Amino acid sequence: EESESKSFPMKKLAIVMVGLPARGKTHIARYIARYLNWVGRATRVFNVGNYRREILGASQPAEFFDPSNQEGRRARWELAIKCLDDLILWLKHQHGQVGIYDATNSTKERRKYVKERLETESIRVLFLESVCEDKSIIEHNIMETKLRMPDYQNMDPERAVEDFQARIANYERANETIDDDEMVSYIKIINVGRTIMLHQLTGYLQGKLVSYLMNMHTLSRSIYLTRHGESEYNAEERLGGDPDLTEKGKRFAIKLAQYIHEEFTAQGKELPLIWTSQLRRSRHTVQFIPTHNVCWRALNEINAGVCEGKTLEEVKQQFPKLYEARLKDKLHFRYPGGESYVDVIQRLEPVMLEVERMREPMLIVSHNAVIRAIYGFLIGKRQDECPNLEVPLHVVIKLTPRAYGCEETRIELNVEDNETVDGSRLDSKLNTRCTKPPKQVFF
Amino acid sequence: EESESKSFPMKKLAIVMVGLPARGKTHIARYIARYLNWVGRATRVFNVGNYRREILGASQPAEFFDPSNQEGRRARWELAIKCLDDLILWLKHQHGQVGIYDATNSTKERRKYVKERLETESIRVLFLESVCEDKSIIEHNIMETKLRMPDYQNMDPERAVEDFQARIANYERANETIDDDEMVSYIKIINVGRTIMLHQLTGYLQGKLVSYLMNMHTLSRSIYLTRHGESEYNAEERLGGDPDLTEKGKRFAIKLAQYIHEEFTAQGKELPLIWTSQLRRSRHTVQFIPTHNVCWRALNEINAGVCEGKTLEEVKQQFPKLYEARLKDKLHFRYPGGESYVDVIQRLEPVMLEVERMREPMLIVSHNAVIRAIYGFLIGKRQDECPNLEVPLHVVIKLTPRAYGCEETRIELNVEDNETVDGSRLDSKLNTRCTKPPKQVFF
Ligand SMILES: Nc1ncnc2c1ncn2[C@@H]1O[C@H](COP(=O)(O)OP(=O)(O)OP(=O)(O)O)[C@@H](O)[C@H]1O
Ligand SMILES: Nc1ncnc2c1ncn2[C@@H]1O[C@H](COP(=O)(O)OP(=O)(O)OP(=O)(O)O)[C@@H](O)[C@H]1O
Ligand SMILES: [Mg+2]
Ligand SMILES: [Mg+2]
Repeated sequence: EESESKSFPMKKLAIVMVGLPARGKTHIARYIARYLNWVGRATRVFNVGNYRREILGASQPAEFFDPSNQEGRRARWELAIKCLDDLILWLKHQHGQVGIYDATNSTKERRKYVKERLETESIRVLFLESVCEDKSIIEHNIMETKLRMPDYQNMDPERAVEDFQARIANYERANETIDDDEMVSYIKIINVGRTIMLHQLTGYLQGKLVSYLMNMHTLSRSIYLTRHGESEYNAEERLGGDPDLTEKGKRFAIKLAQYIHEEFTAQGKELPLIWTSQLRRSRHTVQFIPTHNVCWRALNEINAGVCEGKTLEEVKQQFPKLYEARLKDKLHFRYPGGESYVDVIQRLEPVMLEVERMREPMLIVSHNAVIRAIYGFLIGKRQDECPNLEVPLHVVIKLTPRAYGCEETRIELNVEDNETVDGSRLDSKLNTRCTKPPKQVFF
Repeated sequence: EESESKSFPMKKLAIVMVGLPARGKTHIARYIARYLNWVGRATRVFNVGNYRREILGASQPAEFFDPSNQEGRRARWELAIKCLDDLILWLKHQHGQVGIYDATNSTKERRKYVKERLETESIRVLFLESVCEDKSIIEHNIMETKLRMPDYQNMDPERAVEDFQARIANYERANETIDDDEMVSYIKIINVGRTIMLHQLTGYLQGKLVSYLMNMHTLSRSIYLTRHGESEYNAEERLGGDPDLTEKGKRFAIKLAQYIHEEFTAQGKELPLIWTSQLRRSRHTVQFIPTHNVCWRALNEINAGVCEGKTLEEVKQQFPKLYEARLKDKLHFRYPGGESYVDVIQRLEPVMLEVERMREPMLIVSHNAVIRAIYGFLIGKRQDECPNLEVPLHVVIKLTPRAYGCEETRIELNVEDNETVDGSRLDSKLNTRCTKPPKQVFF
């Protein structure tokens, strides 16, 4: 009937990183890519340094980066172009939506070239500069990331730092921070985000990016994820509802409290922030941990709509078509009257923003679908990978974000069917005997 | 069972405006209040100027604002404090969530006082400064807003501008822009938003605010809202579905095209941007307007879930409890398997951000609940007022945002039952005869 295109012809977006070495460009680029992929935008980082290492080999001395070294300059220029070509190819012909060009781009001339190339291809351009003059931060950055690079594989650390600082000095001479006269949209992150400048920046996605960058910090702290203890519905393979914990589930709650005690109190550390859903099985799982917990509605389990309270077998029998549809596309499948994984991810967005913002360690106790989505976010999975991540009951996943990724440990707190767990010295928050019942606050 | 508070004890937020006169503080304060109230946060602007006018009367000469005028200073100081007291009262004891303190606050000393007062009351503080050095913009601002103030009711415009500029000069002498050493969170809007600086700013709501401020502009242009023409379901009072237009509805489509022709093409103006939902009745309503239209899924009618396709009578009969519940709380009532008004407002947020961003006139053709929500946003209604706004079929609402509010005209394009409308000279986009069918793009 109508002539219509199936999707809004969104212009592709290139984010062009700018900044001297060891200013966190790669860190920021990956942080953004992780967020965008999780909200469903196909995003990829194109790192010129990797091209150099792959094509020329890792061990180039600082002299290679000396601007007066003609050959070095030409080689670096060619690599930068090859990398940009690949970014354009990906955006234009390989379904990419956002390409992040991760290179120093520290001169006006270079940025002008990049901007013109991208605009010729009808790609929107956003520059993202990290500025940091604090010497101690830069040194810390070098220690934390650069010494682990293949470039310095077999070098003595002191010499490596020196070499890297010489490399920075080579860039510093020609460095030009982005200026309004370049007529570009830019975000400037100053002093690790204490100040952020936005110039000529509009749009929905851009606004979201700024929100995420505002809340980014580089402190390392662990995030502990776990599903609630076994509930009466788990035991029967029933969906949703608001059931209580089984005896086994309660034993998990005790073991969890003991584990948290050992990780924190026993080591003289303050207890972590504790976030649960508003459902009983999740709140009861933290009942033996003697501190407040925040109960988020957004952490409630995926709403199974018409299938709530039914066993998988019943769903299969009563709604065979739904059962099939779900197997085919678990990400987009929405329970009638309920939610899809995409819906869950959307309502989790504000929670994840808060997770990024927090500087304290935290324990999140939630549900299968929700923990999958959160875990996927933290370890950098695409949206479509989230529904199939492995998140068993009675396992704590300890994640520690690092500069370029996330360290993971899984702690199995197995509670055997016939095991008895000694919780006699633990007071339950649910128990009125408890003299000073820690409060639960709801969100 | 548990000791639990019903809602998360969110800290109250005070936004403290900063800037010389005629920098758009009141404009920005109202813009923010409009957005926050619409997303359901009780927000109020406390304007010191209004206190002055109410308590001391409107006509104070520029000398009143001279810092060397002791009496004027004391009087202004007392007013400022009274206004701040009321803001605190409202946040702490009258269910207010965000209070906007709209005064110049242009010295460090004043800001220090305000900050300490608020922090003593456990209220979070965010400073929001507008900086603008462009003389022509400031003059334009004076002409557009200040001359209409009660202060200048009976004064000759030229003298009024002079007086107001003298008033500004009095503030300029003591003006201090916000500095990092004040140890506060701030947003600085520079040159009407071309550049925005964020300092020590984190948090979800803060991120949203920045997104809205990024997309704000001060160009005036009209936004035309209308529901689709009468559909086959309207005629039967049936909910939802994806019905076609009736004959009468089609006549409205023709009249709408003629009206748009007269408002734009006939006056030598380019056609407006046209946004519709993805439902037939909305897309078909713009079929005679010879330009592209963008079809947003977010503009689709409220999803009536289990009630889709039913007449009101049937709903009453089959779901008497739902019918009752809806009458009691139309805002929060969610059709089982469908949406509530709150859900609709939430999915409209990105659309409204785009509306704010656009600088061209636009026509939005959507549905009853959705147009109510959009109309409520544009004219500054609270969320709970939206479900009861009057938005009849076959009426175009023309809204023109001004500095402090929104001008409204309603154009009734009545199509009588027995009327014939001559659309012979209009080509339908749905009609294959049409030589160059304008494209519809989907979002
Ligand atoms: N905004 C920031 N400013 C300064 N340092 C940051 C920032 N964000 C992250 N970091 C830190 O930067 C380090 C990582 O540096 P990264 O490798 O990302 O720098 P780079 O700019 O990509 O350097 P190169 O140009 O050598 O590739 C991490 O230790 C991280 O904590
Ligand atoms: N960011 C901005 N910078 C400069 N002008 C702006 C900005 N935003 C809005 N304006 C313009 O400011 C005018 C309104 O000025 P407004 O009355 O809000 O100033 P004010 O700072 O509240 O002045 P006063 O201190 O006298 O109350 C409008 O014409 C509007 O277009
Ligand atoms: Mg790097
Ligand atoms: Mg004002």
